Amino acid sequence: MKNILVLHGPNLNLLGLREPQIYGNTTLDDVNNHLLSLAKQRKADLRIVQSNHEGVLIDSIHAAREWAQGILINPGGLTHTSVALRDAISGVGLPCVEVHLSNIHKREEFRHHSFISGIAVGVICGFGWRSYTMGLTGLLDAISDK
Amino acid sequence: MKNILVLHGPNLNLLGLREPQIYGNTTLDDVNNHLLSLAKQRKADLRIVQSNHEGVLIDSIHAAREWAQGILINPGGLTHTSVALRDAISGVGLPCVEVHLSNIHKREEFRHHSFISGIAVGVICGFGWRSYTMGLTGLLDAISDK
Amino acid sequence: MKNILVLHGPNLNLLGLREPQIYGNTTLDDVNNHLLSLAKQRKADLRIVQSNHEGVLIDSIHAAREWAQGILINPGGLTHTSVALRDAISGVGLPCVEVHLSNIHKREEFRHHSFISGIAVGVICGFGWRSYTMGLTGLLDAISDK
Amino acid sequence: MKNILVLHGPNLNLLGLREPQIYGNTTLDDVNNHLLSLAKQRKADLRIVQSNHEGVLIDSIHAAREWAQGILINPGGLTHTSVALRDAISGVGLPCVEVHLSNIHKREEFRHHSFISGIAVGVICGFGWRSYTMGLTGLLDAISDK
Amino acid sequence: MKNILVLHGPNLNLLGLREPQIYGNTTLDDVNNHLLSLAKQRKADLRIVQSNHEGVLIDSIHAAREWAQGILINPGGLTHTSVALRDAISGVGLPCVEVHLSNIHKREEFRHHSFISGIAVGVICGFGWRSYTMGLTGLLDAISDK
Amino acid sequence: MKNILVLHGPNLNLLGLREPQIYGNTTLDDVNNHLLSLAKQRKADLRIVQSNHEGVLIDSIHAAREWAQGILINPGGLTHTSVALRDAISGVGLPCVEVHLSNIHKREEFRHHSFISGIAVGVICGFGWRSYTMGLTGLLDAISDK
Amino acid sequence: MKNILVLHGPNLNLLGLREPQIYGNTTLDDVNNHLLSLAKQRKADLRIVQSNHEGVLIDSIHAAREWAQGILINPGGLTHTSVALRDAISGVGLPCVEVHLSNIHKREEFRHHSFISGIAVGVICGFGWRSYTMGLTGLLDAISDK
Amino acid sequence: MKNILVLHGPNLNLLGLREPQIYGNTTLDDVNNHLLSLAKQRKADLRIVQSNHEGVLIDSIHAAREWAQGILINPGGLTHTSVALRDAISGVGLPCVEVHLSNIHKREEFRHHSFISGIAVGVICGFGWRSYTMGLTGLLDAISDK
Amino acid sequence: MKNILVLHGPNLNLLGLREPQIYGNTTLDDVNNHLLSLAKQRKADLRIVQSNHEGVLIDSIHAAREWAQGILINPGGLTHTSVALRDAISGVGLPCVEVHLSNIHKREEFRHHSFISGIAVGVICGFGWRSYTMGLTGLLDAISDK
Amino acid sequence: MKNILVLHGPNLNLLGLREPQIYGNTTLDDVNNHLLSLAKQRKADLRIVQSNHEGVLIDSIHAAREWAQGILINPGGLTHTSVALRDAISGVGLPCVEVHLSNIHKREEFRHHSFISGIAVGVICGFGWRSYTMGLTGLLDAISDK
Amino acid sequence: MKNILVLHGPNLNLLGLREPQIYGNTTLDDVNNHLLSLAKQRKADLRIVQSNHEGVLIDSIHAAREWAQGILINPGGLTHTSVALRDAISGVGLPCVEVHLSNIHKREEFRHHSFISGIAVGVICGFGWRSYTMGLTGLLDAISDK
Amino acid sequence: MKNILVLHGPNLNLLGLREPQIYGNTTLDDVNNHLLSLAKQRKADLRIVQSNHEGVLIDSIHAAREWAQGILINPGGLTHTSVALRDAISGVGLPCVEVHLSNIHKREEFRHHSFISGIAVGVICGFGWRSYTMGLTGLLDAISDK
Repeated sequence: MKNILVLHGPNLNLLGLREPQIYGNTTLDDVNNHLLSLAKQRKADLRIVQSNHEGVLIDSIHAAREWAQGILINPGGLTHTSVALRDAISGVGLPCVEVHLSNIHKREEFRHHSFISGIAVGVICGFGWRSYTMGLTGLLDAISDK
Repeated sequence: MKNILVLHGPNLNLLGLREPQIYGNTTLDDVNNHLLSLAKQRKADLRIVQSNHEGVLIDSIHAAREWAQGILINPGGLTHTSVALRDAISGVGLPCVEVHLSNIHKREEFRHHSFISGIAVGVICGFGWRSYTMGLTGLLDAISDK
Repeated sequence: MKNILVLHGPNLNLLGLREPQIYGNTTLDDVNNHLLSLAKQRKADLRIVQSNHEGVLIDSIHAAREWAQGILINPGGLTHTSVALRDAISGVGLPCVEVHLSNIHKREEFRHHSFISGIAVGVICGFGWRSYTMGLTGLLDAISDK
Repeated sequence: MKNILVLHGPNLNLLGLREPQIYGNTTLDDVNNHLLSLAKQRKADLRIVQSNHEGVLIDSIHAAREWAQGILINPGGLTHTSVALRDAISGVGLPCVEVHLSNIHKREEFRHHSFISGIAVGVICGFGWRSYTMGLTGLLDAISDK
Repeated sequence: MKNILVLHGPNLNLLGLREPQIYGNTTLDDVNNHLLSLAKQRKADLRIVQSNHEGVLIDSIHAAREWAQGILINPGGLTHTSVALRDAISGVGLPCVEVHLSNIHKREEFRHHSFISGIAVGVICGFGWRSYTMGLTGLLDAISDK
Repeated sequence: MKNILVLHGPNLNLLGLREPQIYGNTTLDDVNNHLLSLAKQRKADLRIVQSNHEGVLIDSIHAAREWAQGILINPGGLTHTSVALRDAISGVGLPCVEVHLSNIHKREEFRHHSFISGIAVGVICGFGWRSYTMGLTGLLDAISDK
Repeated sequence: MKNILVLHGPNLNLLGLREPQIYGNTTLDDVNNHLLSLAKQRKADLRIVQSNHEGVLIDSIHAAREWAQGILINPGGLTHTSVALRDAISGVGLPCVEVHLSNIHKREEFRHHSFISGIAVGVICGFGWRSYTMGLTGLLDAISDK
Repeated sequence: MKNILVLHGPNLNLLGLREPQIYGNTTLDDVNNHLLSLAKQRKADLRIVQSNHEGVLIDSIHAAREWAQGILINPGGLTHTSVALRDAISGVGLPCVEVHLSNIHKREEFRHHSFISGIAVGVICGFGWRSYTMGLTGLLDAISDK
Repeated sequence: MKNILVLHGPNLNLLGLREPQIYGNTTLDDVNNHLLSLAKQRKADLRIVQSNHEGVLIDSIHAAREWAQGILINPGGLTHTSVALRDAISGVGLPCVEVHLSNIHKREEFRHHSFISGIAVGVICGFGWRSYTMGLTGLLDAISDK
Repeated sequence: MKNILVLHGPNLNLLGLREPQIYGNTTLDDVNNHLLSLAKQRKADLRIVQSNHEGVLIDSIHAAREWAQGILINPGGLTHTSVALRDAISGVGLPCVEVHLSNIHKREEFRHHSFISGIAVGVICGFGWRSYTMGLTGLLDAISDK
Repeated sequence: MKNILVLHGPNLNLLGLREPQIYGNTTLDDVNNHLLSLAKQRKADLRIVQSNHEGVLIDSIHAAREWAQGILINPGGLTHTSVALRDAISGVGLPCVEVHLSNIHKREEFRHHSFISGIAVGVICGFGWRSYTMGLTGLLDAISDK
Repeated sequence: MKNILVLHGPNLNLLGLREPQIYGNTTLDDVNNHLLSLAKQRKADLRIVQSNHEGVLIDSIHAAREWAQGILINPGGLTHTSVALRDAISGVGLPCVEVHLSNIHKREEFRHHSFISGIAVGVICGFGWRSYTMGLTGLLDAISDK
């Protein structure tokens, strides 16, 4: 049984309520249900955290050292600004997959650079909630490959 | 009756105590009293939050979706670094006015760029506590104009 | 009685006629009437100049040394390109407030930098004609504070 | 039945033979077999082209206007240099998914920018041959969603 | 009788079919007919080549040393990336006019620089198919002036 | 009958007298005669203004709102520095064609960027006085097309 | 008796557990013990805070206004991204020494710039836990010198 | 007898009245008297123009083609922004010396680049009014050397 | 017996015919004869390919995996733009020497960066046809040293 | 017994005489006495060299290969400009600590980058003469740790 | 009697022998004779040093603290690269005038920035040997003014 | 008989002793012997200078005007920083070949730019000691060609 930490960064709690022309109508609960249903198939166990607090996200990553085999993260706006989040992930040494609902390369220039990508196994963006399920698949496969 | 969220970012609790050559001697309470007295005249209701925690500011913005018609914000040092704060404001879709006590264009180069300005109705800086009262006036007028 | 020079830079004579999706339908006369009515309340005397000629604007600023206590300016397109205008304002040593009708931070990249902001008391943008009345208020208060 | 053009850009014919520390041991035939097997499940029809010639890739994209509903592309080294390839894809107006075997954000600085990402539905990198199968899944789902 | 090589770069075969909001509805045949009809008036002989292959364009330029007095080129996406194309033109020493259907200065930042302009007689953009006929006129006049 | 404003920016009155290795021997009168003769053929009416004063050029553009259907402009050195001129043209909402006698892309780096091109219908450079007649042709055709 | 606030930024709780090739095997407790033992010798009193939350670090700095004479800080990943932390330190007006375990100039480009250094008394990096004891020595001496 | 055009750019009429900590107490009349007295010694004839209007400066330069052998210019704020002024000077083909009262390299970054220096015989800055007399000497000598 | 692939990139077929002030009068046949005669002395076998098609060059490099021990390449204009060519060379894992006839550091700024140099054994430029013979010597020696 | 080379770069002989507002009143002899006294305690032997000649510093570093176990260096103005000094240090392979009297991050922009830091064990700045004694301590400890 | 140190940097001993198209035919002896003759008139005493060694120049500047009231320097190629030279001049606190024979703003881009100008009284370039005599005049006047 | 100055810049005396993973095991004597033996074959006379002092290198170049026909130089770390060295070489007007043992394009970013290349006949890097013998060959041939 694989244990996976799923992290949703700042503002993702607004999903489905917020700027649907960019993010679509799916809510965070919908995303989580898609993930849980896939996890069931793949016999993985998920713990899901959403926080608007960088510190809470970092604390969750640290805690994952004790119980998880991998991290699936959508860092939200912290993607482009948080070295501390990057350090947390590389510090615990768990494989990490970075996902984004929208294609960040179609958006403002400042969203084209990610501090997380350089330490991730892989990156997926632009597929809406499916970015998450693809990311979970890729993460579980990467863990199996090791 | 208009409801307005007033947000003071990191370090603004030190106001009047901190670097008076830049920010003057007015305290945050003084600023808030000026705002409350103006709100009374304009028949607006204010809820005022100061926090040094980005996450608390974001949570307050999210909550404002339920009760407020606009946001008046001095993001402090987060002005120049927080994409998450920007996303929170644009995510809730409320009109927002950005204010600064000092004229940020007279200060260090890194203070000349704001992540908030691009999604604000308008921006005011350099007038001390009056930046706030001007900003509240401008915000209430902008809400009325709609 | 305070005497204030109000300067409208290039193309502001087109106001209300020009790109209403950016600048709205208010004409320059409307703006001036709002300013004159506020000046009356605040017991200030305004001299208003609009010119498409940088040299005329500079000459007006120089002349203001003899009679004015402050300058309210919307430098229009010269905001981003005129060191001579900046030098004129800092040369006469009068407090100056810079205003813009639109939020220049939402527009083209080359409109994000102002040569005037670094020598202004404060800067206001994005509130339409109210940027001017706020600016006049801020300027008069700043003069009183000295 | 959905028809998909699968494009492998320059040097991907060397796959499995070339720099295994970066790309692994999987050959291009292996990748194609994974894709064909997934296509069968999803009832999609694939036409697969590998070329080291930018012009051949562009011609294939043009031809796809007549028969395909989407494009799955790993542009190889052209990712970072070819405006013509970008124009070909946006010219035919078909949804396109961009994939990379390795995580390009971990490699040389010049590999961090893609001319294709800005016109793609989504982008996937870092999962080896699975980047392709994920990409095909994402592309087929995106086509179905329309 | 003047002999002119007319070169259409990558994706111009899609003309009229592709992104009409940018390029209009004229097809490449229409463009060529306009050119041929003008050539007839001006007693010039045209050889017209369209290719999506940079190498084919370069080979055509080389061959033109033997028979042509000038080159009219729309380099398409190669405008911004091909030093080899630039070298081919400057290598054969024939006067060259560069044309674009759309105004490239209104489009993405990466389309504002051309490797060809620095070695062209002149550059024309933004007039749709008329950019070509203007360009042919300018080229023929430039050849006559010598 | 179409009415066109023809604007010659700073230093163009020196034409034919100034740096013939760059600009040739044609005088401004020659250019104007070429334009007038073309205008006669095309049944257009021209008003021609040359000024070394940015403000005079802007005033002429404003005045053109009342009588002209288009603007043909060689902004001279203001091409690279005047946001106010750009704003004047976009403010009056008339179609504008930008022309240059020399190929500005062969000259100093600071001449490669134009503030006018981004709001022009099209741009022509490098054909000497013929840049003007081509530009007038392109402008008249663009007006007819509307 | 001097009172000193010792701050450990995000991820420093992982010390000794995290990336030993960069940070060595010393734990945060080891560092703190070294500091406490030095403080005893120097008759200083330390209060030590580690947090992954920027806001908690800022709150601690604010509180130190009441009781401390100086601040010793390793800001971790916030070094490179937090203007708010910088403002907190300069706001309370206490002398501050910045330390890093590793030599940040040997690491990624984005770690070469610190927002804290510009307001620190001094900066020490690269000596492992000894960076801290050196820093405490330097801080105490600097306080004594005043 | 040598005839020299002396040009004082924008704001130099304020000399002695303006920012004495940068420019000293000498007035423009003082500067001109120093120049006239030197000219007398050197048997040169000066025509002196000060204007805040770029266009007036350019017109004066053009007129100088008829009567002058050289130009001495302090372009003021236009130094850093006016391509048109540069073109005027290079257009008339007269030797030109550029002077500044203050050392522009000690001031703001944007004052370090001059559009005029690249076409001047020589440049002098930092010697107060003596920059002018040195400049006149240098200009007269340069004319004699030819 | 060592087998070496000699590659001449775009436009090198024009050698001797093209811009002799930069490249001299030697033709490509002359270069090849110099190389063949040196190869004979050094008992090496050369296969020589010139192409204006990037894809043909890449295919030749791939094919060289089967028969060659090294590559001597003058990438022409592709030097500065082709990541695909770089990937081809690093993909086949053969030692490669890069040569240029002219000293590229004396030419346009955009010719100062090479995508090939970072993966080459060594680089030689500026010696005309002798750059090739030196390069072949260096390549053969490098192969022998292994 | 550990042998240490202490290097003082250009202008440090002026210490105490030069710009005391930046460097304080301590002379170089004072610094050296502090170092010698510390060395005595730590049973280290110092050879101290000050030179304004880059070459002399490099020669001293080379000579240190024969007798020293480490280098303590304040490179003065060469910090920011000398690759040769950097190469000398990395060439002899001795551990090196870089120190500065002032906090270079508070000074001009060009002083923020050091060519030496990237090859140093650690860097200390801002503590006046104590930067040196801290640096010597850190260097001796680093040598002991090996 | 004023004592002045005259410094000629690297390569100025070649003057008159070297690149006469840039520097003219005057030798260093000629320059020095012009200076000595002027010094005699102005009752100043000169000590003249030319060196190709940065260290020798710095040593001379240091020594000047004991006997000189000012420094006249042409730093040659060190102008653009030597922070140590800058520090030496600002360290001794003597007024300094920087001169160049040629107009450095007409030459390569890398010659446009000087590390010395920011600490000089004034800067003169472009007047051949007269740059020196003007510079000496300016320096003596500046010393007298104090 | 041709006379050649061979210059080895800073740190090359450490060759063979220093960082063999970059520079190999060959000593400077080995390099010189290879050069001398080649010189004998080619009937050239070498004078060889190694110095860590920029000034000594410049003096040697100046002296070479009297006796040498060319210069072979490995400027070491001065390659990237010394304008004075560049000026010395261009000042004496002798043909110069620049060589490097390692391929500088594979090393740190700051080693990719050379101040010498722009005035050299040619440049060779990456072939170990053979870079020197190739360079000498190229230099002698270039001298013969003149």
